[in-house]
Amino acid sequence: MVEFATRGVCAAHTIEEAQRIFWGALPQPALARESLALADALGRVLAQDQRAEDDVPSFRRSTMDGFAVPAGAGQRLRVAGEIRMGHPAPVPIAAGECFAIPTGGMLPAGADAVVPIEHVRRDGNFIEIARPAGPGENVVDPGEDVRAGEVVVPAGQRLRPPDLAALASVGIARVPVFARPRVAILSTGDELVPLGATPAPGQVRESNAVGLAACVARDGGSPAPGGIVPDDADSVRHRLRSALAEGDLLLVSGGSSVGERDFVPTTLAAMGKPGMLVHGVALKPGKPTGLFVLDGKVAVALPGHPVSALVVYDVFVRPALLRLGGDAAWQMPRGCAEAALSEAVAAPRDRDFYCRVRLEGGRAIPLAAGSSLLSSLVHGTGLLRVPQGTRHNMGDRVQVELIA
Amino acid sequence: MVEFATRGVCAAHTIEEAQRIFWGALPQPALARESLALADALGRVLAQDQRAEDDVPSFRRSTMDGFAVPAGAGQRLRVAGEIRMGHPAPVPIAAGECFAIPTGGMLPAGADAVVPIEHVRRDGNFIEIARPAGPGENVVDPGEDVRAGEVVVPAGQRLRPPDLAALASVGIARVPVFARPRVAILSTGDELVPLGATPAPGQVRESNAVGLAACVARDGGSPAPGGIVPDDADSVRHRLRSALAEGDLLLVSGGSSVGERDFVPTTLAAMGKPGMLVHGVALKPGKPTGLFVLDGKVAVALPGHPVSALVVYDVFVRPALLRLGGDAAWQMPRGCAEAALSEAVAAPRDRDFYCRVRLEGGRAIPLAAGSSLLSSLVHGTGLLRVPQGTRHNMGDRVQVELIA
Repeated sequence: MVEFATRGVCAAHTIEEAQRIFWGALPQPALARESLALADALGRVLAQDQRAEDDVPSFRRSTMDGFAVPAGAGQRLRVAGEIRMGHPAPVPIAAGECFAIPTGGMLPAGADAVVPIEHVRRDGNFIEIARPAGPGENVVDPGEDVRAGEVVVPAGQRLRPPDLAALASVGIARVPVFARPRVAILSTGDELVPLGATPAPGQVRESNAVGLAACVARDGGSPAPGGIVPDDADSVRHRLRSALAEGDLLLVSGGSSVGERDFVPTTLAAMGKPGMLVHGVALKPGKPTGLFVLDGKVAVALPGHPVSALVVYDVFVRPALLRLGGDAAWQMPRGCAEAALSEAVAAPRDRDFYCRVRLEGGRAIPLAAGSSLLSSLVHGTGLLRVPQGTRHNMGDRVQVELIA
Repeated sequence: MVEFATRGVCAAHTIEEAQRIFWGALPQPALARESLALADALGRVLAQDQRAEDDVPSFRRSTMDGFAVPAGAGQRLRVAGEIRMGHPAPVPIAAGECFAIPTGGMLPAGADAVVPIEHVRRDGNFIEIARPAGPGENVVDPGEDVRAGEVVVPAGQRLRPPDLAALASVGIARVPVFARPRVAILSTGDELVPLGATPAPGQVRESNAVGLAACVARDGGSPAPGGIVPDDADSVRHRLRSALAEGDLLLVSGGSSVGERDFVPTTLAAMGKPGMLVHGVALKPGKPTGLFVLDGKVAVALPGHPVSALVVYDVFVRPALLRLGGDAAWQMPRGCAEAALSEAVAAPRDRDFYCRVRLEGGRAIPLAAGSSLLSSLVHGTGLLRVPQGTRHNMGDRVQVELIA
């Protein structure tokens, strides 16, 4: 019998369709919570709204160096004393008097405005005011920043330095955060040997799990590398099942297509409901991607090629991982840089092309698919998306997504 | 005597001038090196070029599923067998024969090209080739990716996931990295109480050190918070001196202006050569910034206002810290997002304005200087630079630097 070979995954879904289907089906894992001191909480996701116990500021403060006065006080006032930082005024303000006050100082009773030092003429123990101050001028009233009971940092916020400073400023020293989602990572392929081993002819060192584990750690997950799985149906079934039991999310690289030895998609699909949501995305590189939700667990089958695996991670896994971790900003795009393209880049007719580029001196230099794999990994500092059937020309200004 | 009060730091330098002066004077600290396993090396800076020991790939590999052939082989070939992944071919190729080969498989001796499966018609044990393959077609030759001895990842690279994958792929399991620069952090101000304490009237909780320590940790430094320093000349001198001895970099917030109690700049200036490089920058907020190099140590005096301190950190401290840590990409700008400004923002006549903005649905919403301090900290997700004397109007498309 003579026949034409037909093979390969059909690019059944656009990227956006695949994302919508996958993200719409993501379960919300019942993540454990832990309580951390602020110094340990950087990058963790807040599990509960944090509220101020008291008004901030707790007293009427000056926002300028100057003189504390009753609003509208006359042109010439006696300086009754000086407010010391961190101390209340010793006595209330009397008629015809003022107090010298530093920025941040507490206004004495009877004063509700500050005349900046630049607007007065000092004459020994007296000041002359060029323009009287209105009520509340150059002061912050108690509770003006936050009222007691108000939310300072909301649940779902991934804690950045300014969030931690804000929490400290209202006296919150420990915070409840979500546990990191556990991410099991497997690599399939009879040609793979682990990092410590010396490859025999025909063998190569496993490297995808190293890169994916680092991505997961960077993005707030807890990676659990599970090693190399040989290309036979029984091993794949057994190892996938135990990895799925261990993690909230399972990443499997290699064997994600529809070839004879590509057992991963069909095996995963049988492991729970609703099963395989997407197999095949109009994405280059990364067409043979499989996206699964399996009885409350999530799994992604990634291509074995290291550059493809990282693109699929960026497009599908990273947002899902952030969301599984409780991060309210999981859909926030990454930062971009505008650059001039150093040479033309074209996408295929039927797939969007994510081109790795090197950014250098305002130029985006494509690291062509045909070029060195290692160079593309190490020198790629950005991803340029080229929509299917289109082309960016040399010199075009393009927005490049920065990949950390 | 009657006189007008004159005061304040003169905005002596533009931001770029101040950066050039400061960065030009930065010492290169003799950072210790440590050896780390790849799994622990994410985000660390490589201390030495890493070279491939062997050619990558180490054998001639197929880049397609198909049939391994001698280039130019005739139209009809007998399929002598199948190459198994991870194994060499059992026998060399004979005239009139080919081997079925998977992507990544090792070509048998005598084959130097691969005909993709899509381009053949299979007929039992024979294939018919529509178009003969040229030499090297659909194969990667030994060393084509990296030659033995070539640099895979250069010294000075901050290790990202793809770098770690590249190192794994050439069998490098441990890497030498620079120790993290030590960063001493002090806060000055008689009004400050530490996080655990309850502020009395006139007092506020210290929060700058919490925010700055988190910035330092995020940017690869090792923060050493040194507590609160009272506003008296002796305490300031004593505490600055010991903090400077402990760190490669010293950050002091508060007391950075020229007021009566602003001892920090003059005290630091006397602590080493060349001394105070810059005092006063045309930057809002952050004018009273002091930049110092002191006998091989680096110090920065930051304003006490939390939002100002974070802006000064972003503009001056972060690049300096990256550089002190050996990061070759220390001047690489952060990622930006383009957004439409929700209201007009104007810079003063004499200073560039760094406006914190909230990014939401493609809009950049300025968090006005007069608005809540806490809100500005927590909701600010970007920094918009407005050059001095200029204004961005409502609806303008602006590039906003993303602040992590």
